[in-house]
Amino acid sequence: MSSIVVALGGNALASSEDPSGYTAEHQIAQIARTSAVLAEIIAGGQSLVIIHGNGPQVGNLLVKNDLARDVVPAVPLYWCVAQTQATIGMELTAALKRELAARGISVPVVPALTRVRVDATDAAFDNPTKPIGLVVSGDTPPDIPLPDTHAWRAAGRMRWQRVVPSPRPVEIVDTDTIAMVTDVGGIVVACGGGGIPVVERDGELVGADAVIDKDRTAVLLAKLVKARRLVILTDVDGVALDFGTDKQRFLDRVSVSEMGRYLESGQFGSGSMDAKVSAAIEFVRLTGESAAIGNLKQVRRVIEGRSGTSVVADPA
Amino acid sequence: MSSIVVALGGNALASSEDPSGYTAEHQIAQIARTSAVLAEIIAGGQSLVIIHGNGPQVGNLLVKNDLARDVVPAVPLYWCVAQTQATIGMELTAALKRELAARGISVPVVPALTRVRVDATDAAFDNPTKPIGLVVSGDTPPDIPLPDTHAWRAAGRMRWQRVVPSPRPVEIVDTDTIAMVTDVGGIVVACGGGGIPVVERDGELVGADAVIDKDRTAVLLAKLVKARRLVILTDVDGVALDFGTDKQRFLDRVSVSEMGRYLESGQFGSGSMDAKVSAAIEFVRLTGESAAIGNLKQVRRVIEGRSGTSVVADPA
Repeated sequence: MSSIVVALGGNALASSEDPSGYTAEHQIAQIARTSAVLAEIIAGGQSLVIIHGNGPQVGNLLVKNDLARDVVPAVPLYWCVAQTQATIGMELTAALKRELAARGISVPVVPALTRVRVDATDAAFDNPTKPIGLVVSGDTPPDIPLPDTHAWRAAGRMRWQRVVPSPRPVEIVDTDTIAMVTDVGGIVVACGGGGIPVVERDGELVGADAVIDKDRTAVLLAKLVKARRLVILTDVDGVALDFGTDKQRFLDRVSVSEMGRYLESGQFGSGSMDAKVSAAIEFVRLTGESAAIGNLKQVRRVIEGRSGTSVVADPA
Repeated sequence: MSSIVVALGGNALASSEDPSGYTAEHQIAQIARTSAVLAEIIAGGQSLVIIHGNGPQVGNLLVKNDLARDVVPAVPLYWCVAQTQATIGMELTAALKRELAARGISVPVVPALTRVRVDATDAAFDNPTKPIGLVVSGDTPPDIPLPDTHAWRAAGRMRWQRVVPSPRPVEIVDTDTIAMVTDVGGIVVACGGGGIPVVERDGELVGADAVIDKDRTAVLLAKLVKARRLVILTDVDGVALDFGTDKQRFLDRVSVSEMGRYLESGQFGSGSMDAKVSAAIEFVRLTGESAAIGNLKQVRRVIEGRSGTSVVADPA
């Protein structure tokens, strides 16, 4: 049976209510709650392939790099992404295994460290836009050395945040584990954080100081596993028009052409909802299947199409 | 064909000549050199299962935790172990894939995040002995909060180092990837750093604030994959008697009983050579096959039994 690709938001996974700044304890508790619901869905006969974000987690690792840099060497950003694939992937698969075992289900549940290739000439490398890490106060940007492709950007009056390139994913490099696990009906957590970014240089793949939007990578992953549905889970209830105004209204079910027009008209700004809508549109256009965007807390209802926003193929 | 389990030392992998304290750049270069040789051995028809240490790498992550702890939350030690499995596993498999491709060989080469169960009642939890992280100067131990099972230990006059428990590995928990990859003749890097330590509590597996000796775990891994040889690679040329005295002599080929007597007589102290010799003895006793301990720089010759110390079954 073909799979559903489920994309879990990094913010949603890490519990934004955590006053202590994304402790391991809070992440584990949030992952446990999500895994219990995902296990129910798997027990109901669905085959899932899971991808997750890592924004807050990779941000914290960069801060540690910065604060410890005079004592132990900072590691490159793509190593930080790999580190978040390990911690989130491990906790997510451990929780899923536990929840599935409690339901008498024994299938491989495997985290896959996954590199994703981006284009070395992607314009994003000249124009870093993705903010990660803490906001730092000061008259001038912090005196912390950055890779060539990163920058400090003003984030309000006397406040600064690092921005990094977010190039478009081109190809999932490490597909062996994904293929082996899905072939035997197992559950794989892959492409975490959008994937560990690599570029081709002189015929070899080398790590890139960037991050990749996980919703964009989710489309590549859905294509790879021939998914019959893409479900993007976040911390809002769905896609809204005129968001934040008194005309705001949530979309229930929209054709891909209609959604494309909303996107082009600038309805979703240039933040994370814009990326999610683009990914949903791309998936529906590529496959003719449907996509959904909804709240992680309603994961079951979103997967079943009873909550959130569905993007469907145009009527024939 | 049954495999050879190759255990790569964390110090050896990270290049102890690196004056900058184990930068990513130096680790990658060292891994590239090792991978080229391992690829030659694979091209020669050997099937390898690889485990690696992580001492310097996990130490650096703990230091980052400590230095950034007032800004971003410290993560538990078992998360740090998972993070080193990700970075070393990714770089090692990437380099191996590249070297194998250059030799026209295309097999799955996969890093497996692996949890390893230890006993919650292991005496090591009351007696932390494994030093990790930087040595810190001061009249008194640093004012850095530690988990209950960790301690600061004097490391010379006015110098302190953290010690953590190193319980005995009982069982490899995450075996799915290892089995799938070895079944298709692929190469798997598993149980990095000795494995991500977990204990059973109320019927559930939870992370443990410990590290596991990777040579001990190598024996479990060798048993799991029914290896026909265990090869432990480090930064010395083999096992020596009367090490560091003017009577010092390296052992070439020793029966398991003879090596057992040397071990019991205290020849190898209680450091890392002691653990390697114990692991080699345990493997030979369990399987009747042979084990070897030798220099990573001589990896090919050690695997072939032409360098290092071989431990073989007693003559019938």
